[in-house]
Amino acid sequence: MYGLIGKMLAVPGQRKALITILLEGAAEMPGCLSYVVACDLTEADALWITEVWESEEHHRASLALPAVQAAIARGRPLIASFGEHVVTKPVGGHGLTPPAIDAS
Amino acid sequence: MYGLIGKMLAVPGQRKALITILLEGAAEMPGCLSYVVACDLTEADALWITEVWESEEHHRASLALPAVQAAIARGRPLIASFGEHVVTKPVGGHGLTPPAIDAS
Repeated sequence: MYGLIGKMLAVPGQRKALITILLEGAAEMPGCLSYVVACDLTEADALWITEVWESEEHHRASLALPAVQAAIARGRPLIASFGEHVVTKPVGGHGLTPPAIDAS
Repeated sequence: MYGLIGKMLAVPGQRKALITILLEGAAEMPGCLSYVVACDLTEADALWITEVWESEEHHRASLALPAVQAAIARGRPLIASFGEHVVTKPVGGHGLTPPAIDAS
């Protein structure tokens, strides 16, 4: 498995809008086992994204998905900067679930 | 929701043993929506735990569970120190699933 823990700073006042975009883009990503967006409690514009993927390749491939491309395009102007960025190797736990892919 | 992102340093050489204990203790915790243990890629003894709970109260109550108490007792001697510790407010995403509680 391949994991990411990242902090992001939204343009002041735009955290909620950025979160909405991040969650829309994350709905159906093949190989994504966990994708959680969380607000930082001490910084009004900061948020954390924690991700678990089947593999690094699945994560890389997700960046080419139309929904993710669209989310990046809409979200980028709302991002002021990036903070901590940690790449991990998840080894287990609870809540690692394949996405429900809509194949219709 | 209530979230935690934490880094832990195992006693040298004890990361794998510590991970096993952490995962055993995390199997059935009421109110736990996600609990992922991951290895740090750059530090041989470091690991990350990312957690999502229905509420802070659910997390606090989990610490009194016999399985968690036992895990803490067995794991504590294997922990050298704690690193980053971030409390968050998760707002959504994928992989947030209630535990399968064994009521037998």
